[in-house]
Amino acid sequence: MIVDPIRSGGVVPESVKRSLLEYLNGYSVCMYCPGDLHKITKPNIKRLIQVDLPEFMGADVVRLVHGAREAFFTVFYALFKEHVLTRGDRAPVIVVDGNTHYSLELAAERSLLKIIETETSGYPLFKVGLEHYEEALESVVEEHGKPPLVTCITYPDGKYGNFPDNIKGIIKLAREHGSYTLINAAYSIGRMPVSLRDLEADFIVGSAHKSMACSGPLGVLGMREEAASLVLKRSVRHPSKEVELLGCTVRGLPAVCLIMVMPYLRRRVKEWERVVDLARYFYERAERELGLMLLGEKPHSHDLLHFETPAFYKISLKLRDRFFLYKELKKRGIIGVKPGITKRIKLSTYLLNREEVDYVLDSLREILELGEGD
Amino acid sequence: MIVDPIRSGGVVPESVKRSLLEYLNGYSVCMYCPGDLHKITKPNIKRLIQVDLPEFMGADVVRLVHGAREAFFTVFYALFKEHVLTRGDRAPVIVVDGNTHYSLELAAERSLLKIIETETSGYPLFKVGLEHYEEALESVVEEHGKPPLVTCITYPDGKYGNFPDNIKGIIKLAREHGSYTLINAAYSIGRMPVSLRDLEADFIVGSAHKSMACSGPLGVLGMREEAASLVLKRSVRHPSKEVELLGCTVRGLPAVCLIMVMPYLRRRVKEWERVVDLARYFYERAERELGLMLLGEKPHSHDLLHFETPAFYKISLKLRDRFFLYKELKKRGIIGVKPGITKRIKLSTYLLNREEVDYVLDSLREILELGEGD
Repeated sequence: MIVDPIRSGGVVPESVKRSLLEYLNGYSVCMYCPGDLHKITKPNIKRLIQVDLPEFMGADVVRLVHGAREAFFTVFYALFKEHVLTRGDRAPVIVVDGNTHYSLELAAERSLLKIIETETSGYPLFKVGLEHYEEALESVVEEHGKPPLVTCITYPDGKYGNFPDNIKGIIKLAREHGSYTLINAAYSIGRMPVSLRDLEADFIVGSAHKSMACSGPLGVLGMREEAASLVLKRSVRHPSKEVELLGCTVRGLPAVCLIMVMPYLRRRVKEWERVVDLARYFYERAERELGLMLLGEKPHSHDLLHFETPAFYKISLKLRDRFFLYKELKKRGIIGVKPGITKRIKLSTYLLNREEVDYVLDSLREILELGEGD
Repeated sequence: MIVDPIRSGGVVPESVKRSLLEYLNGYSVCMYCPGDLHKITKPNIKRLIQVDLPEFMGADVVRLVHGAREAFFTVFYALFKEHVLTRGDRAPVIVVDGNTHYSLELAAERSLLKIIETETSGYPLFKVGLEHYEEALESVVEEHGKPPLVTCITYPDGKYGNFPDNIKGIIKLAREHGSYTLINAAYSIGRMPVSLRDLEADFIVGSAHKSMACSGPLGVLGMREEAASLVLKRSVRHPSKEVELLGCTVRGLPAVCLIMVMPYLRRRVKEWERVVDLARYFYERAERELGLMLLGEKPHSHDLLHFETPAFYKISLKLRDRFFLYKELKKRGIIGVKPGITKRIKLSTYLLNREEVDYVLDSLREILELGEGD
């Protein structure tokens, strides 16, 4: 049973796996290519891109990319060339929340952009809200006399599973400051209903291998019409090709996988309330009965759960074995707590049912008792 | 039977396909990650990168990337930042041969680099040699007073399957002019023995889904030590991560596929002479007996064969069906000639044995007779 947050949302349904065998070869989608990956109708990538995903993500324009980080880079670098190098009307800066993912920061660094991180409410909630963004946005305008190029919002973050407070307010504020807005939805698209249109941002990024039951690497980049026109410029030398995508991106199996899992994804996001209820049931019992302490917002609204676990750390010292927790869980068929980690652990209940959640709780209790017993 | 040049080298062995099923999930390689894809030992990506591929490609340093085009971009953009934006000691120009692949040109365009294409010997051989590069290199130095950033050599190209004349001389000349050198070996690494060290260039790029029997997307970037240090700088904020790779690249199945096919690749490149002999046997008979005319160099040294086929074009006019050739071949189980193409066709004999080559010749003859019969 997988309880690893980065893997729980990327498990491909067994029935799809078998159908994917015939697409394992290199260039398995390119036989009927009219010159652009996104126009292939056999398999129907065109429909995926033009109908299924725009509907699923509430975006005007969608493109397949190699993953969420590659989507961040694609957006940052295209906007950097347009608004920093060419027009000079934006500061070479992005504003990010204090819980942002390192890969987004790498994408900014690769694009020669400076990173301004907002404060958070700090330990133990680590909440981010409008006031944190206001401060960061103001500081950029003050220093550069220009708005930051992009304001990024993690929705939710991968450290605590927190959603920002008042995301629509943050997006509105960023736009009023003259900044583009990008939502990192790597932990939401494919798990829960998400709509770029509802959130009114310019860009939204999903990770298919993280939260869309897909083989990797694969990400989705959703855009509003006007924003898309900046990122999807066509090549001067090869006018049928989009320069920032280098013509074609995911030329193979992961694209087919996403086509095949779309019906499943549409169904599963409707179950999100049940998923959150189960996560709450788990952490409430883990806190009350086992003494684990959940970090991040409460009530929690995501299956990614980050616990402080001083009791496990103590046992690891006593046993002189920092791998004991990993090993004991593995013995019990529970996979996903990083080997060697005992002070704080991240768990996801995404793939579990109520019975399995109880089993994980019982297993953790047994392992705690093991430590006491010695 | 697949005769499509872009797909013939990317067919994954059946035995490997079955073992890949368990790696279809997203992040299937990340369970034991110590913080960097290229350091994962379970599955052993570290060994692939540090031992197997450096040996196989004759490179000091190797990295996995999403494909050949992504490797070109990674190199161009990193060198652009270092040598154009920062040091200003190179012209924002790349020199490429007249047979270069469009994706390399897109990678340059995305990196804000101008493209200077060499001449070729033109129809029907389209050969590129030292004299063509000399002219192009001189023209850049004359115009900019600085060397071009990178000189790129397609080895062989994907239009005609031509190898450049005197590639070592070209690389030496480019280096003497002060330019970095990059070999596009998307059609050679994995099909035939290739060594960056022997060729004495700075970068070499292979395509795993094109020529390394791999599921896609996946490419390999081989570098000489000094060249690698420019491309693989570490992040200031996240020092364990390589910025130009955005931390990790191919986080999933294709990386495992390459590990699994390495023994097969080592064996198959030793068979290259036999592959070339069969391609020659095919085109010699096709020219002599069927009136097809091979474009590109003769004797040919690659399985990628580009024929002029005026007879098929005539039949398509007569039948008022430009898809007839595709359909007739498909009827006979021969897959890979692009639907709608009849004037010039590209074929690869890579996956065929002598008997199958004879069958393809017989089939083409039948189809020609079909046209005459009406």
